[in-house]
Amino acid sequence: MAVCELIVDIIEGRNPVIEALKAGRPISKILLDKSIRAHGSADQIIRLAKIKAIEIEYVDKQVMDRQSSTGSYQGVMALAAAKKYIGLHDLPAISEAKKEPALYLVLDGIEDPHNLGAILRTADATGVHGVVTRERRAVGITPAVAKASAGAVEYVPVAMVSNIAQAIETLKKNGVWAVGIDMAGETNYSSVDFRLPTAIVIGGEGKGLSDLVRKRCDITASIPMKGHISSLNASVAAAVVMYEALRQRTPQQ
Amino acid sequence: MAVCELIVDIIEGRNPVIEALKAGRPISKILLDKSIRAHGSADQIIRLAKIKAIEIEYVDKQVMDRQSSTGSYQGVMALAAAKKYIGLHDLPAISEAKKEPALYLVLDGIEDPHNLGAILRTADATGVHGVVTRERRAVGITPAVAKASAGAVEYVPVAMVSNIAQAIETLKKNGVWAVGIDMAGETNYSSVDFRLPTAIVIGGEGKGLSDLVRKRCDITASIPMKGHISSLNASVAAAVVMYEALRQRTPQQ
Repeated sequence: MAVCELIVDIIEGRNPVIEALKAGRPISKILLDKSIRAHGSADQIIRLAKIKAIEIEYVDKQVMDRQSSTGSYQGVMALAAAKKYIGLHDLPAISEAKKEPALYLVLDGIEDPHNLGAILRTADATGVHGVVTRERRAVGITPAVAKASAGAVEYVPVAMVSNIAQAIETLKKNGVWAVGIDMAGETNYSSVDFRLPTAIVIGGEGKGLSDLVRKRCDITASIPMKGHISSLNASVAAAVVMYEALRQRTPQQ
Repeated sequence: MAVCELIVDIIEGRNPVIEALKAGRPISKILLDKSIRAHGSADQIIRLAKIKAIEIEYVDKQVMDRQSSTGSYQGVMALAAAKKYIGLHDLPAISEAKKEPALYLVLDGIEDPHNLGAILRTADATGVHGVVTRERRAVGITPAVAKASAGAVEYVPVAMVSNIAQAIETLKKNGVWAVGIDMAGETNYSSVDFRLPTAIVIGGEGKGLSDLVRKRCDITASIPMKGHISSLNASVAAAVVMYEALRQRTPQQ
C-alpha cells in the first residue's frame, strides 16, 4: 500500500491559510499582495503569523498570479511543508483515541477538486476519522482542493492507496463494515446501522462504484431519488450519508 | 411579488439538453459541433430532436465557443424558450396535486451558480415542491446553473421574489412552518418535525441568514459541526436538511 508525500504545498486563499496556521502546519513563509490593506481576515493572518514567528513577504500581484494555481488566492498564499498522507494502518489508532466506532470514507475515483474539497469539509464536520482515496484517475490534495475544503484539508487524515478494493479488504479485516453507496443499492441508506464501525464507499462522478469495488462491499445502499434526475452530485451524496451516520451516532435530545 | 421571465435560454451540455428535451421544454433549435461524432448521448439528442421535429444545425466549434457562457457545452447547445419563474401563489397547487404536505426551499442569497445548480438537483431528488429565490444579490437561472443542476432546472418550480422576509410571511399565512437553518440555531435539524408543511430557509454563502429573515422563521435549527471548520458548503447544508425531511416523510421499511 503506497504512502505518498507532496514535495511542497502552496496554500491559497484567506480561510485555507488561517486554518493551516491554526492547525500548526509547518509554514516557511506567507506571501501577501502588496496592494491589499490589512483588515479583517488579512489582519488576522498577519497577527497569527507574528505570534508563530513566520516570515511575511509583501510581493507584487503579478508574482502571486504566476504562483497561483486556483486563480482566487485573495491576496494571500502560504508556502507550507508537504501535506502528509497517512497509511491505512494508521487509521485504527484515530478512532481508538476518540473512543468511537470507526467511521471512514472511501472514495473510488473522485476527479473534481471542488467535490473532493466539499467532501473533506463535510468529513471534518461529521467527525469522520479518515478518508481513503486512490492514486490514479482521481484528484489528490491539490491547492484547489484545499481551497474548496475551506481549510478542512488540514484536519482530515487522508490515506492514498493504489487499490481501493484491496483497501476495503484490509478495513474489513479490522472489523469495519463496508457500505457501498450505489443508485441500485440493496437497501435504503437510512436503514443501514451506522453505529457499527463503518466505511462509507462512494463512487466517482458519473461512474459510480466500479464492479470490483462494489463486490467487496458488505452491503450496498441507495439514496432515494424522487424526481427526474438519476443521480446526485458526488459531494452531496457523500454528505447525505455522512450526516445520517452522525445522526444515528448522536444520542436523541 | 414580481414574476420574472428570461427572454431566451441557451442550454449548454449533453445532460441539460437531454433533460430539456425529455421535459418537453419548447426548443427552437439544437446546435451541434460539426466535428463531433454521433454516438452515446449525442446520438440520443439527435434521436429525441427528430421525434420532436426540432431543427438541428451543425456548426463550427468557433461559433459555439462564442455563444457559450459555461465554456463546457460538450459540443451541444439548445436554443429554448425562456425558463418561466412561477409566482408564490402558484406554490400551494403543486403539493395539493401530489397530496403531500408542502415542502419548499427558500434561498436567502445564493450567489454561486454551482451551488444553486447542486441545490436544484437535490431539490428534484427529494421531491421539493418549489424553490423560492430572491432577485437581488443572488444568482438567477443562468446557463451555468442549468448545467450544474444536471438538467433539474427543467423540473423544479422556481419562484423569484423581491423580498424573502415577505415571502416567508406569505407562506406562513398558508399554514407553512418556516425553519431557518443557522449555525446558531435553537435546535438540532434532525429534531425538527418535517412531516408538517415546511419551508426550509437557507442563507447565502459565507453570510448565512440575514437578521430580518431569521426573525420571520418559526424556528431556527443547526446542523451539528463536530470538527474545526465552522460552516458547510451551502449546497451541502441544503441537501442534508432536504434529505432529513424526505427520510422523515418516508414510511420505515
